[in-house]
Amino acid sequence: MSAERDRARELQEVLHHEIPLSQQIGLIVEAYDGERLSLRAPLAPNINHKATAFAGSLNAVATLAGWGLTWLLLREHDLHGVIVIHESGARYELPVASDFVATCRLPAAHAIERFLAALRRRGKARLALTVEILDTQGRAAVVFSGSYVAFINQEAGTQG
Amino acid sequence: MSAERDRARELQEVLHHEIPLSQQIGLIVEAYDGERLSLRAPLAPNINHKATAFAGSLNAVATLAGWGLTWLLLREHDLHGVIVIHESGARYELPVASDFVATCRLPAAHAIERFLAALRRRGKARLALTVEILDTQGRAAVVFSGSYVAFINQEAGTQG
Repeated sequence: MSAERDRARELQEVLHHEIPLSQQIGLIVEAYDGERLSLRAPLAPNINHKATAFAGSLNAVATLAGWGLTWLLLREHDLHGVIVIHESGARYELPVASDFVATCRLPAAHAIERFLAALRRRGKARLALTVEILDTQGRAAVVFSGSYVAFINQEAGTQG
Repeated sequence: MSAERDRARELQEVLHHEIPLSQQIGLIVEAYDGERLSLRAPLAPNINHKATAFAGSLNAVATLAGWGLTWLLLREHDLHGVIVIHESGARYELPVASDFVATCRLPAAHAIERFLAALRRRGKARLALTVEILDTQGRAAVVFSGSYVAFINQEAGTQG
């Protein structure tokens, strides 16, 4: 079993334990390859009045995809801290009429290096991430951007 | 019992029926006075790893506050249709460490008139709404903006 798979399993336990609503949403960690994290959720518990996914559920899963990738990044660099989301934006472009997967990809290497360096130096750093949820035809149904803040050895100022 | 109170009760049934996750979140319609809609949710089912409200729950309740106020607006003008959110943005400024209330206020009269006129003329119109969630000291903890689209007698293009 790869180190990525172990970490993905660990992340799922962390999400289910620390954010109980993720269990109601039916969230599972689908894949992590060291660069991209995909979270899956079934349609049924997240359905809305038009038999498509409720925007609030889509937003929650996207929020957790960015949070989870930041968590994995810290984990891989042996950094322990608190991660919160400070700002987010979402465009709901197309309806999602099936189970869905939110995928967050690490930004370019220089952005990661800057984030890690700031985190080690100041104990706090910000990471901008984008998350996509595709429809069954592979089109971007939801485009989400989140600004995450990680803190090391100090209390967080906003909620995760 | 006032007409507003009847409508608030009707809205709560609609939300619980059409968006089942709203029941997991513990959402209730707290108040509606014809101008402002307040939705309340308990902290317990929405808690996160820092014993404050999960951003995804805050976002979901804010999303529904805007959706609900748009629903009430249509209802009061005897318009029947589908409402979806097309875009949203949220700033998570302060942690929310208690049960919370998301309040959405109707925009200025001219914006409402423009929205209703466009809806009657073209069968589709867009309404920009802001929602606030205050912390226990009355400070804005979450500031949310949503762009909602209402459709009359036609299928919706994005999810609600």
